[in-house]
Amino acid sequence: MSTVDPRPLGVFDSGVGGLTVLRALRARLPAESTVYLGDTARVPYGTKGAGVVTRYAEVNAAFLASLDIKLLVVACNTASAVALPALRAGLGIPVVGVIEPGARAASERTRSGVVGVLGTPGTIRSGAYQRILEATRPGLTVHAQACPLFVPLAEEGWLTGDVPRLVARSYLEPLLGTGLDTVVLGCTHYPLLRGVLAEVLGPEVALVDSAEATAEAVAGLLARGDAGPAPGGKGTDRFYVTDVPDRFVEVSQRFLGTKVARAEQVNLSVG
Amino acid sequence: MSTVDPRPLGVFDSGVGGLTVLRALRARLPAESTVYLGDTARVPYGTKGAGVVTRYAEVNAAFLASLDIKLLVVACNTASAVALPALRAGLGIPVVGVIEPGARAASERTRSGVVGVLGTPGTIRSGAYQRILEATRPGLTVHAQACPLFVPLAEEGWLTGDVPRLVARSYLEPLLGTGLDTVVLGCTHYPLLRGVLAEVLGPEVALVDSAEATAEAVAGLLARGDAGPAPGGKGTDRFYVTDVPDRFVEVSQRFLGTKVARAEQVNLSVG
Repeated sequence: MSTVDPRPLGVFDSGVGGLTVLRALRARLPAESTVYLGDTARVPYGTKGAGVVTRYAEVNAAFLASLDIKLLVVACNTASAVALPALRAGLGIPVVGVIEPGARAASERTRSGVVGVLGTPGTIRSGAYQRILEATRPGLTVHAQACPLFVPLAEEGWLTGDVPRLVARSYLEPLLGTGLDTVVLGCTHYPLLRGVLAEVLGPEVALVDSAEATAEAVAGLLARGDAGPAPGGKGTDRFYVTDVPDRFVEVSQRFLGTKVARAEQVNLSVG
Repeated sequence: MSTVDPRPLGVFDSGVGGLTVLRALRARLPAESTVYLGDTARVPYGTKGAGVVTRYAEVNAAFLASLDIKLLVVACNTASAVALPALRAGLGIPVVGVIEPGARAASERTRSGVVGVLGTPGTIRSGAYQRILEATRPGLTVHAQACPLFVPLAEEGWLTGDVPRLVARSYLEPLLGTGLDTVVLGCTHYPLLRGVLAEVLGPEVALVDSAEATAEAVAGLLARGDAGPAPGGKGTDRFYVTDVPDRFVEVSQRFLGTKVARAEQVNLSVG
């Protein structure tokens, strides 16, 4: 058994989306304390290039490392898709992304061997899900689809009704009739659109959300002793953002289930 | 008559939207050369706070100033709404924003005295259009409406059909029946949605786009000698972006009318 370690888990995302991952971490590991950073001054990442996203991810990771975290969770699919090697090379602590856990969960789930992946243009362009799915279970057929409007829809709270339904239909049309039985929600915003996605895809298609699989992966690393588990009791959470906190606090309930009480603005310099 | 000045006009925007202003400048002042900067690594500005947008605007302006421009056009409504005083204080050249020209054009156009303003959350929150409209023509009634989904719709090319129509209806509903006869498109992306906006607002409502009014304001400054006009012939255009240029080049046609041949990526450091 590993020595307990009271230091927090660090979690970052481009904005509020990663709060869906934090929610799963809280449920799975209630004793752990967390520090969350939302890079709201530079959101979104999903429509930006790999080089720019990697620079932002490195600045975020360095800030969280300065707060003495014991493990880093990259709760953003786009950053996980392009920046994990750079982050792993630069930090002396375990780094967990959301893509590998989500891809593994999907490959275990599918019976038909046909899996859909929905993500931002950056995530889909990187091919990260496609690569891990095919490596985990050779012979899988993967249909990847970029869905750039889902992030603004989720951010603005257009979660039900005609607009998200029509947008979802337009993106998912090419996937229907391919025999897929499992779809990975490859962006932390997408679980908010679960209702319309299920409606368009039909009841026979399972929707896999990386949040729970990622929390499970973190639990596994702590159990294995890659970082020590919290001493017990209930963990605390702190929140930082790079733009004014008002809007982050306001929409946090939608992503976290409870409202963030307070988030502090920090000015991170990006060279 | 003022001495000719071959130096270019500098133009910046958060991304591609400002190309609608560049297009109007090219049409009105074909002899002028231009340098355009799209801050695609930090786009969008409209959902971000005034402090963050001002920092980005100052970095953009400093970059363009380093290229020896004779006049700066802030072709972004959100930056014009919050950052003009800071930019004017820091640069030794004339600075033109898009809000005052657009607001003046709308106040001259209206007969009913009821004007609508559509903009990003940042622009509407700033109250800049409302203030200038009321100062230009006291007694005007102004209805301001933030339309956060219009930018992603325009960026992704959802310009016609059910989705933009339903979104436009939802935003414009509160404005219908107020007696307005003039609506300012207070974001450089919105002219792309002119078709659905006209359809929802009806033929009796005039849509005012700041691009032409801004080009006219720049022409006025050059005629007045605040900066010297170009020596004649046909001006040249250069383009810079802060993220990979692919997507900027790809969607430029939609905003500029012609495709940008080449854009160079620059890495601007934001402290």
